[in-house]
Amino acid sequence: MSRRTRSRQEWEVCASTLARKTTNLIRRIVENLQVEPNPNKELIALSIGDPTTFGNLNPPEQVLQAVRDSIELNTSRGYAPSKGHYEARVAVAKYSAHQGNVHPDDVILSSGCSHAIEMVITALADCGQNVLIPRPGFSIYQTLAEGMGIVIKHYNLLPDEQWKVDLDDLESQIDDDTVAIVVINPSNPCGSVYDKDHLNEILDIASRNRVPIIADEIYEHFIFSGNKFTAISSLSQDVPVLTCGGLTKRFLVPGWRMGWVIIHDRNNILGKEIRQGLSNLSMKILGPNTLIQRALPAILEYTPQSFFDDVLLFIEDQAKLAFEELRHAPGLRPIMPQGAMYMMIEIKLSNFPEFSNEFEFIECMVSEQSVFCLPGTCFDYPNFMRIVLTIPEDKMREACQRIVLFCKEHVVFSEKRKDIEED
Amino acid sequence: MSRRTRSRQEWEVCASTLARKTTNLIRRIVENLQVEPNPNKELIALSIGDPTTFGNLNPPEQVLQAVRDSIELNTSRGYAPSKGHYEARVAVAKYSAHQGNVHPDDVILSSGCSHAIEMVITALADCGQNVLIPRPGFSIYQTLAEGMGIVIKHYNLLPDEQWKVDLDDLESQIDDDTVAIVVINPSNPCGSVYDKDHLNEILDIASRNRVPIIADEIYEHFIFSGNKFTAISSLSQDVPVLTCGGLTKRFLVPGWRMGWVIIHDRNNILGKEIRQGLSNLSMKILGPNTLIQRALPAILEYTPQSFFDDVLLFIEDQAKLAFEELRHAPGLRPIMPQGAMYMMIEIKLSNFPEFSNEFEFIECMVSEQSVFCLPGTCFDYPNFMRIVLTIPEDKMREACQRIVLFCKEHVVFSEKRKDIEED
Ligand SMILES: Cc1ncc(COP(=O)(O)O)c(C=O)c1O
Ligand SMILES: Cc1ncc(COP(=O)(O)O)c(C=O)c1O
Repeated sequence: MSRRTRSRQEWEVCASTLARKTTNLIRRIVENLQVEPNPNKELIALSIGDPTTFGNLNPPEQVLQAVRDSIELNTSRGYAPSKGHYEARVAVAKYSAHQGNVHPDDVILSSGCSHAIEMVITALADCGQNVLIPRPGFSIYQTLAEGMGIVIKHYNLLPDEQWKVDLDDLESQIDDDTVAIVVINPSNPCGSVYDKDHLNEILDIASRNRVPIIADEIYEHFIFSGNKFTAISSLSQDVPVLTCGGLTKRFLVPGWRMGWVIIHDRNNILGKEIRQGLSNLSMKILGPNTLIQRALPAILEYTPQSFFDDVLLFIEDQAKLAFEELRHAPGLRPIMPQGAMYMMIEIKLSNFPEFSNEFEFIECMVSEQSVFCLPGTCFDYPNFMRIVLTIPEDKMREACQRIVLFCKEHVVFSEKRKDIEED
Repeated sequence: MSRRTRSRQEWEVCASTLARKTTNLIRRIVENLQVEPNPNKELIALSIGDPTTFGNLNPPEQVLQAVRDSIELNTSRGYAPSKGHYEARVAVAKYSAHQGNVHPDDVILSSGCSHAIEMVITALADCGQNVLIPRPGFSIYQTLAEGMGIVIKHYNLLPDEQWKVDLDDLESQIDDDTVAIVVINPSNPCGSVYDKDHLNEILDIASRNRVPIIADEIYEHFIFSGNKFTAISSLSQDVPVLTCGGLTKRFLVPGWRMGWVIIHDRNNILGKEIRQGLSNLSMKILGPNTLIQRALPAILEYTPQSFFDDVLLFIEDQAKLAFEELRHAPGLRPIMPQGAMYMMIEIKLSNFPEFSNEFEFIECMVSEQSVFCLPGTCFDYPNFMRIVLTIPEDKMREACQRIVLFCKEHVVFSEKRKDIEED
């Protein structure tokens, strides 16, 4: 008794543009690699950005106790306001005082830092508008933006200047459709940490072009000795800064999905509109898990400094170890990081004529040495690879030695190559 | 040293269309109401859909224990695959066997049922396409769709036939841009539960018009005596059904944000495209909290039937109590629900000539009797109000008595009104 039937007579269900265009660059690349390890050597994955994978890094007892306590509260089960429980936002504001004057109303809790980034990008950008991200840079930005028709443009970092921003390039990328500049500091994948002067240079460009900044500071406080972390928001005079952070890395609980956006807007440029917009967007999934929200004040207050110091010391030691080892790998150039938990390594492909790109180098290294590094192309940066610094020391040493061996076996120096070419 | 400056010389930061158009109908309406309770009477909020608010309904000990155990696992802190840990998806598949033949690969975990709904809607619908939802119906669908430019169209439910679907109206709403029919069973706000015959009638329409179904079954198993719950997916021959569910209501943990999508697609109509699309979308926020994911197998397996029975008995008793009391409220027509945790009550405004709409009725009832019910307009259904059935019995009784009193004080019967009119 159909009153009308659709013109479509066959079943045909198509995915939306959003669903089709939402992709994960890292996964897409890794899935297409031939990574069959050498069966005689245990695989060492230097690719995994989850610091808890190897079992050597665990959250401190105080963090676990805070959640144990939270379970017993009958206020940890009901819906929270979609921006988060007030007490939790107070705690984040206090914890983030180094970023500038943070009020609980400036804080919106999110389901991990990824969700924080999603909210700020989609609050600012309409389809066709663009966001500038660093190259090399973490690929979640593409995952979150491109399906929405938001354009991701890149500005270059300078590997020879400890991955500082190429300021001219940054400014040249800004156009009338640019709604935000993303600054990832400390950086994934570079491990760079910017000093005040450099952050001020970036702010100057944002200010004279009237572009807000999205500060991805999920690695805040992961700073190796001799460097200092400065939140870009604390320096800003006029530029609105939306800072994205969370528990993920510093507290070693990525699976708990607890992140936040902090709105820094001294001159009230974002006004009601962006605040309201972020608040609207938070209503979509009604905030992060309330067990963790209720634990947040204790987590942020009672985690001892010694825990952070120990983790950081370990990572810095790993960085030094890897750097020392890999400096002796012919044909590679490791770039010593200043923070975070990664190191970028240049593969001088001219010294490895049998490989036409970094993928082939990496694939061959897995098949011979069972060591897997992430191709630089995952960060839009070919001819490099990224290693993580969070794996146990013995594995790190072993992995580096295998990398050195692999390079020695495959490197071809110019004279040698000349010989080959003359053959 | 600007290489180029934008044409924009003043700071002006606008929110995106998405951010502006993402709104919460309930909140918007409630914020605009004048709800100043009578200072001499304690406010009783019959409006709050969070069953944990009143403290009388708590998750069972087994659920809390499962999370306590999960905290101690060092696998409950790292990133999960974005569709969820395999073991958790196995548990959901097993728990959902009544829905049809569910394989773990058919399960995608989400951050609450809202997030499940967001993923299925945005996987199916492009800007300009439409999704059909019931009227009266829960407003999260507007919140999730309208900002994306996805159109929400309504089909009517029939209050005189226990809120069955007006099948003619449903079919007449389908057009070439319709990508899904949403069936909310049991229903928020109606409390209706559809039998097999009626679900088959809905499936027939979906089948001959080639429209997939989104089954919102967050209230599955909340079924009062004499009724039976059937998952619409279990009846479908050809129509693909995307079922959205979660722990939220049945386990009394809405704040934990644990939901799921289950893909039912016997004839493989959704194919790779929709599965891949959902999987892509799940990468945006990397799945729900892993503490709960790790606890999920124990939660779903060990929660005793007696817990569910007790909660359900309580809610059904409340429904009977409210129905009995409010049947005697002149000018009201409560409609006895068959499940879920709500009751809809018609306000016969012709008997309340001093109020020109249900808002005025509700506002006045708050100011005189300190009882607050949710206006039907929150569900696109004027002249009704919704009450929750989860508040403690003594409050429910008191609230109903006050409602009856309010009606007696304000009702005007036809003869009386005739008198007034003739004055
Ligand atoms: C630079 C950067 N931003 C954001 C994220 C996402 O963090 P989360 O896991 O809290 O979503 C990561 C995770 O690796 C990251 O490296
Ligand atoms: C019909 C319906 N669907 C979905 C939801 C959202 O559930 P969750 O809190 O798990 O996101 C609700 C919440 O009240 C609901 O009533």
